[in-house]
Amino acid sequence: MENSICNLFKIQYPIIQAGMIWTSGWRLASAASNAGCLGIIGAGSMYPDVFREHIQKCKKATDKLFGVNVPMLYPNLDDLINIIIEENVKVVFTSAGNPKTYTSKLKEKGIKVVHVVASVKFAQKCEEAGCDAVVAEGFEAGGHNGREETTTMVLIPMVRDAVKIPVIAAGGIATGRQMLAAMALGADGVQIGSRFAASDESSLHRNFKNRIIELKEGDTHLALKKLVPVRMIKNKFFNQIQEAENKGASAEELKAILGRARAKKGMFEGDLEEGELEIGQVSAMLKEIKPVKKIVDEIILEYDNARAKITHS
Amino acid sequence: MENSICNLFKIQYPIIQAGMIWTSGWRLASAASNAGCLGIIGAGSMYPDVFREHIQKCKKATDKLFGVNVPMLYPNLDDLINIIIEENVKVVFTSAGNPKTYTSKLKEKGIKVVHVVASVKFAQKCEEAGCDAVVAEGFEAGGHNGREETTTMVLIPMVRDAVKIPVIAAGGIATGRQMLAAMALGADGVQIGSRFAASDESSLHRNFKNRIIELKEGDTHLALKKLVPVRMIKNKFFNQIQEAENKGASAEELKAILGRARAKKGMFEGDLEEGELEIGQVSAMLKEIKPVKKIVDEIILEYDNARAKITHS
Repeated sequence: MENSICNLFKIQYPIIQAGMIWTSGWRLASAASNAGCLGIIGAGSMYPDVFREHIQKCKKATDKLFGVNVPMLYPNLDDLINIIIEENVKVVFTSAGNPKTYTSKLKEKGIKVVHVVASVKFAQKCEEAGCDAVVAEGFEAGGHNGREETTTMVLIPMVRDAVKIPVIAAGGIATGRQMLAAMALGADGVQIGSRFAASDESSLHRNFKNRIIELKEGDTHLALKKLVPVRMIKNKFFNQIQEAENKGASAEELKAILGRARAKKGMFEGDLEEGELEIGQVSAMLKEIKPVKKIVDEIILEYDNARAKITHS
Repeated sequence: MENSICNLFKIQYPIIQAGMIWTSGWRLASAASNAGCLGIIGAGSMYPDVFREHIQKCKKATDKLFGVNVPMLYPNLDDLINIIIEENVKVVFTSAGNPKTYTSKLKEKGIKVVHVVASVKFAQKCEEAGCDAVVAEGFEAGGHNGREETTTMVLIPMVRDAVKIPVIAAGGIATGRQMLAAMALGADGVQIGSRFAASDESSLHRNFKNRIIELKEGDTHLALKKLVPVRMIKNKFFNQIQEAENKGASAEELKAILGRARAKKGMFEGDLEEGELEIGQVSAMLKEIKPVKKIVDEIILEYDNARAKITHS
């Protein structure tokens, strides 16, 4: 395939593997890059020295381009940025904050910068900030989510019409049919999270991976809207939050229930009841944990079949 | 175009005009049928005698097939069913309830029956009940909404894989690109609501139509989740509900705020502050009120262009 996203990242398929916390280490990122996609290391859950180690291991595991995802709300952001520059990382996806903060500094170093947004308004800010592309992420996506709750079906055509830079669709994309739908909506590429979370190479705890492939429709939900909306699995922790929210709990009260390191507890340590288990709505379609290479091959085969069907209908 | 939905309803395009309350009278339904789609009269907001009048006027205004939408929670449901049979209506879309209630009675009369669902589980119930097709409606849709909050992007492929009957996608579809995306996801046809609500022929109050085409992203939201989730415009009434919900209001308290005839007040009488204004998320893309014929021609032109682009990419 040849398009603006393939050209931008020198990749075979216009597929980005999402840089997810507790999920996207060097094993997943290098496997995705080796399979023809852009692999991304998720820095959000890594201490700076761990982050550097993952970058170095990823370089050894692939000679293809890979990127890193850096949430702008990371406490010691400058430390990560310095490591990125020192380690000569070529692609940075920024998220959860203002795209203007680091885009020009990174671009001066020849780094390609993409920012993740959930609205047209912020997609336009990305273009103004000089981003090379924008990820537009719908309500169905796992983890942190937009306040507008705009779904991928509605968000992508609006972002497409509002900016000239390449648009990467995210949220609700796990299969070739969904990838084709995203391209039909005007996207130049897709970012896939949940499906790669359920891969052999993701660093999620085995308990959580096994839970993902058992999920049914309605098993994830948006919570913590008074703090930052997060899509997570309905478990004991979620029920506690929801009960508090139904009674009108304040942001402070929710923070107290949330406590610290809830995502680590669930996603990395495998506590399926007390942990915060971030995953997308599309997880309801996943039935098996597979190697990344097989996942990518299946997506591309299904994409080609769906495209042929649309073409001949 | 030729496919299972076109064949089922003898229509030129696999497009269903949604049978919406206070919106879809005989003018809209006949215009949609005359433009090559399946027009649907929305019975939910009509007294039985008014409903009969709309059917009779629709018959005079088109020689094409049209249908009616009947919510199963309508207070005197038998009255509507009797009118449908007496007036020899050929297509009934049922919604908001169990598809088993009337499907076999209607099918015995040679009527085609389609039920509207928001989940795989209920789509399977439709197939078991003998429905001719199913409408699968995502979270982004206006008005009554599913508790699972599954978006169109995720819902359609799951429903497609779960049933053999034709699948009509709804929620977030207003343009040809979105129609193509729905077909890529595995739908056989689409149901379009908001875009037809903003037509010359819809029976919505002029104030509301004008408000629809000014909406921006994030201007609609799901509310009343403790009763039945409804997507509506954020206005004074919505804010009152949301404030109560944030404080943990009970279902009884919400009912008291809701009162009676809120949707009529807003959608039909044009009170943009005190009324309940039901519309889909995709309304943020609508910029102009147009005749139905022009809307359909634009959707098909855009669909063909988007399909050609996907085919040659």
